[in-house]
Amino acid sequence: MKEIAVRTAQHTQLVNITSMVASALADLDQSATLCHVYVPHTTAAVVINEAADPDVAADLAAAYQAMVPNVPFAHAEGNSPSHLLATLLGSSVSIPVDNGRLKLGIWQGIYFVELDGPRTRRVWVSTI
Amino acid sequence: MKEIAVRTAQHTQLVNITSMVASALADLDQSATLCHVYVPHTTAAVVINEAADPDVAADLAAAYQAMVPNVPFAHAEGNSPSHLLATLLGSSVSIPVDNGRLKLGIWQGIYFVELDGPRTRRVWVSTI
Amino acid sequence: MKEIAVRTAQHTQLVNITSMVASALADLDQSATLCHVYVPHTTAAVVINEAADPDVAADLAAAYQAMVPNVPFAHAEGNSPSHLLATLLGSSVSIPVDNGRLKLGIWQGIYFVELDGPRTRRVWVSTI
Repeated sequence: MKEIAVRTAQHTQLVNITSMVASALADLDQSATLCHVYVPHTTAAVVINEAADPDVAADLAAAYQAMVPNVPFAHAEGNSPSHLLATLLGSSVSIPVDNGRLKLGIWQGIYFVELDGPRTRRVWVSTI
Repeated sequence: MKEIAVRTAQHTQLVNITSMVASALADLDQSATLCHVYVPHTTAAVVINEAADPDVAADLAAAYQAMVPNVPFAHAEGNSPSHLLATLLGSSVSIPVDNGRLKLGIWQGIYFVELDGPRTRRVWVSTI
Repeated sequence: MKEIAVRTAQHTQLVNITSMVASALADLDQSATLCHVYVPHTTAAVVINEAADPDVAADLAAAYQAMVPNVPFAHAEGNSPSHLLATLLGSSVSIPVDNGRLKLGIWQGIYFVELDGPRTRRVWVSTI
């Protein structure tokens, strides 16, 4: 397993980590058929989506926040919306690997999703 | 890995691909314990849910669109809602396999989720 | 593969199953690098999130229900909202394993998410 550090700059932010995951993968088992990317946090997530137009990442960040329902939250830290979105987006993705390289779709990239930043976060990359 | 082609007919549509995944699986490693189903697109997803009553698939398609928040989107292609839903639903599922066969729950099927159709799409099936 | 039984008490409820998954894992392959947790139901899900403050689980349960859009549903059983949330939250999670033990983040736990209870449910734990 390889650990990646991600420094985020905003409360809600998608950070393209595709090249960092590809680099980590290069140091792991070259005969693997899947790459597993795991976020060990409870107010962050990882998703796969379009990495060509940066407007997409900004649109997603705004839309996630707009989807949080207007209900009372009991959790004293006040970041229940961040926990909510983390569970909806998910804590891991798995991507096919071919000859030691990520086999993503043409428009796909891997995004770390910060939901309670800015912070320094960790991502764990392993192979299957 | 085996590739499946899926032809969709509507903008938002759930297509039951369970039998196609099962067929692809029959051509792969029979000693596998998990089947990985991956969507290499950024405006489509894959989910597992009830496959008995077709009303469920139609209800889900309508509900997904109704969940998109009414916020301004910057992405010039105009399909940010499709990208948003793709990240919430996810780009892959993994299902237990027993003796080369999918071990789904009794009511479960695998749905390709078209979120920006109609199009011809691809799905990648691999084993673990 | 090991099967866990989960008895739920409410319509919508997050049940912390971390220790049950850890116990099942102890009976499986100790050289595994990932643990796969699968829900074979269509109105339930599994997520990873904060397991320290029980308020978080209660906040999430309330927020999920509040996110269901107010649209007509055709499915005669009347539980389309449960199916909808199950697809958004997902039917499986996979967690890194180190020396036969779950390698979760510090604040993370594994929650079974009941969306149409109370019922007795099953969870399938396997290793990769």
